[in-house]
Amino acid sequence: MSFSKKKGKGSPSPSSLRDDEYSQVIEGIKKIYNSKIKPLETTYNFEGFHSAPLTDSDIDAKPIILLIGQYSTGKTTFIRYLLDKSYPGEHIGVEPTTDRFVAVMHGEEDRVMPGNAAAVNQDLPFRGLNRFGQAFLSRFQVSQTNSPTLENMTIIDTPGILAGDKQRIERGYDYTQVIEWFAQRADLIILMFDSHKLDISNEFKLAIHSLRGQEEKVRVVLNKSDMVNQQQLMRVYGAMMWSLGKVVQTPEVMRVFLSSFWTEKPPNSFEDCRELIEAESKDLLRDLKELKRNAAIRKINEIVKRARLARVHALIISHLKKEMPAMFGKKKKQENLLKNLEQEFMKIQQRHHLPAGDFPNPEKFRQSLSVYDMDKFKPLKEELIERVDEALSVDLPRLMHMFPMSNPQLDQS
Amino acid sequence: MSFSKKKGKGSPSPSSLRDDEYSQVIEGIKKIYNSKIKPLETTYNFEGFHSAPLTDSDIDAKPIILLIGQYSTGKTTFIRYLLDKSYPGEHIGVEPTTDRFVAVMHGEEDRVMPGNAAAVNQDLPFRGLNRFGQAFLSRFQVSQTNSPTLENMTIIDTPGILAGDKQRIERGYDYTQVIEWFAQRADLIILMFDSHKLDISNEFKLAIHSLRGQEEKVRVVLNKSDMVNQQQLMRVYGAMMWSLGKVVQTPEVMRVFLSSFWTEKPPNSFEDCRELIEAESKDLLRDLKELKRNAAIRKINEIVKRARLARVHALIISHLKKEMPAMFGKKKKQENLLKNLEQEFMKIQQRHHLPAGDFPNPEKFRQSLSVYDMDKFKPLKEELIERVDEALSVDLPRLMHMFPMSNPQLDQS
Ligand SMILES: Nc1ncnc2c1ncn2[C@@H]1O[C@H](COP(=O)(O)OP(=O)(O)OP(=O)(O)O)[C@@H](O)[C@H]1O
Ligand SMILES: Nc1ncnc2c1ncn2[C@@H]1O[C@H](COP(=O)(O)OP(=O)(O)OP(=O)(O)O)[C@@H](O)[C@H]1O
Ligand SMILES: [Mg+2]
Ligand SMILES: [Mg+2]
Repeated sequence: MSFSKKKGKGSPSPSSLRDDEYSQVIEGIKKIYNSKIKPLETTYNFEGFHSAPLTDSDIDAKPIILLIGQYSTGKTTFIRYLLDKSYPGEHIGVEPTTDRFVAVMHGEEDRVMPGNAAAVNQDLPFRGLNRFGQAFLSRFQVSQTNSPTLENMTIIDTPGILAGDKQRIERGYDYTQVIEWFAQRADLIILMFDSHKLDISNEFKLAIHSLRGQEEKVRVVLNKSDMVNQQQLMRVYGAMMWSLGKVVQTPEVMRVFLSSFWTEKPPNSFEDCRELIEAESKDLLRDLKELKRNAAIRKINEIVKRARLARVHALIISHLKKEMPAMFGKKKKQENLLKNLEQEFMKIQQRHHLPAGDFPNPEKFRQSLSVYDMDKFKPLKEELIERVDEALSVDLPRLMHMFPMSNPQLDQS
Repeated sequence: MSFSKKKGKGSPSPSSLRDDEYSQVIEGIKKIYNSKIKPLETTYNFEGFHSAPLTDSDIDAKPIILLIGQYSTGKTTFIRYLLDKSYPGEHIGVEPTTDRFVAVMHGEEDRVMPGNAAAVNQDLPFRGLNRFGQAFLSRFQVSQTNSPTLENMTIIDTPGILAGDKQRIERGYDYTQVIEWFAQRADLIILMFDSHKLDISNEFKLAIHSLRGQEEKVRVVLNKSDMVNQQQLMRVYGAMMWSLGKVVQTPEVMRVFLSSFWTEKPPNSFEDCRELIEAESKDLLRDLKELKRNAAIRKINEIVKRARLARVHALIISHLKKEMPAMFGKKKKQENLLKNLEQEFMKIQQRHHLPAGDFPNPEKFRQSLSVYDMDKFKPLKEELIERVDEALSVDLPRLMHMFPMSNPQLDQS
């Protein structure tokens, strides 16, 4: 990545993934998914109960970094630092400057794609944004530029949050919900603070609350750490942690980085914490470099989860089909099966030695099921199940072996 | 103070009080109280409604510093640092060492006074501790030693808090309530943390909760700050603030000092934050030096409040006396007065142009009043009131003039 070179540390850490290895993993996932998992999904109506089949661009999608913070904390400057250049349509300045959500992505040429176009583009992971309507889409854009950094990640720049309520009312869309949408899809969420002005506005609080459950992805950056002296920095940092501790519900402390990211050093910056700030910045950049590796692992992990779910789903659907009578009393039987879904789940569980936890919520399942004619379900095709079993026991573990270190996240699942 | 000399800063800050000025203020308060306020109190049964008359030793009492923290954070070592010597019965060590509450006070000779003796001693401000019973008193002592530092303050060393519940059960007295008692009487409360082991046990949490309302007196010290390197120190400090923010209810951040107090520098200490640690330590010691000045102001302030209350009280009592009939129907009248106390208060308020806020809570007052025979109350003696008025308008303001800077606390009252 360009920023690693800038720091003069060319050698990649042993745990980081080489670019070709990454594409190899992604291609591997696509092949396994399309040939061994997707067929099972489509045969047994997986989409109607869980989610649409993954497209290649879903699997291709790069790790996403989401930047959040009050206005003027240096979010856009941080992106310029990472890219070592401006992105098309970038604005940096003292006033609240970034007035929209910008997905900064890789592209051979500089190009700005308006929100409406981006949200219908099948090759981009932003179709879900349509739900936020026109008011939002006119405040969203994709900015493409050619940058080695962006070959490895997509960065979401966001409008800075103001202190009052004015902004919220004028926006016309629900900022917090948009943040939540991006946060769920992000691989890393950076909460940026400014050592100069440390207010956590109500809207910022709401945004932080909406990150609940995603805490492990969050990194807090106290930016412009060199704009105050050491004792002041300690006060500011302490005050920030104090407030954050009140806002964030988890007892585990979020990882914080005392940093300052700029391409041209501000004239009035302090030197007394330079070493600390550089060490901290390096730590954060290492986290970013790890992202790709983690994203690859996470993707395998998600495919594993999905394959197991698709397998159980196929067993349920084919079981229901088998229970249906050949000729008479279909309607009655369907009603009975629907009513006693819990017991049917139990039967499948025992027959196939499956853990109860692998089964979907019966209540939800019943709801989705009610619109189907069970008689039209497909009977069990052993061959499809075998293919998924092979993916789970051979192909996906083989991909995992490309990662030398064990990964606790995967181990847990 | 000895520690100011040790730091090689001989000249007192302009706002600090010279020793002879301090005694002058204290003597002044005693004279005013004994000659002009106390007579009014005793004449109108002030004790039965509010509190016992102040003794000279109540007024003499030095500012109290309360030290609280988990075990082995360096509380006792901090005291040794302040005194530049050990106090009688002092224990410093890696294990939980201080096993009792120790009031470290000035005395011409080294002397240890057991808790029972201390709690009955009229010259010491610890009579209130009797309420905690034998189990506590056997874990309390007064240690006297000759030290310039102790001429200006009394320091309460406390047993370190352990993590589990074991200690709490074995104690036999309510640690949190004892802490609360001392905290209410303290002028400064130091919460001491250790940058090595940063756990906030449940009991410590309870202790912190019991400081509610006293937040402005609290100073947090992250001690042994030089036992970790700069980046570790930041982590520890951040984690501490995070947890404290969750425990302490006020949005205002407590003042924290990153310090390390020792008389002999530990061999394995880090140097990378030495300057910061020294600056922070100096700030804390300045706070301690200010203590005497603040204590003097606080004492005048309390006497002013007390005098105003005694004056209102005298007006109420003498008013009730006046309302009582000369001969018949005394019982009936007393009942009526008791019942309509709110209206009587209103009458007094109007007659003497007093603010409603100066009056006691009628419900509470009624309760205290019910055991008295109103007929036995003394009638109004103008001369006694005039003496208090003089104290309030001439004598006490004159004492205040000894403090060059205006004091917001007094201005508010
Ligand atoms: N590390 C830094 N040190 C000092 N000044 C900085 C630093 N980073 C950014 N700035 C300055 O702060 C101001 C705001 O920067 P920038 O526009 O990047 O913030 P932003 O968070 O993107 O703001 P907005 O939310 O309004 O888009 C600019 O004047 C920029 O030069
Ligand atoms: N600033 C410091 N740096 C390094 N070590 C220290 C420092 N202060 C104290 N210590 C060491 O920590 C240990 C505990 O010190 P001390 O007994 O003063 O703590 P304490 O808080 O009074 O403990 P307790 O609650 O058990 O009474 C001792 O070994 C002491 O030498
Ligand atoms: Mg911006
Ligand atoms: Mg001790």
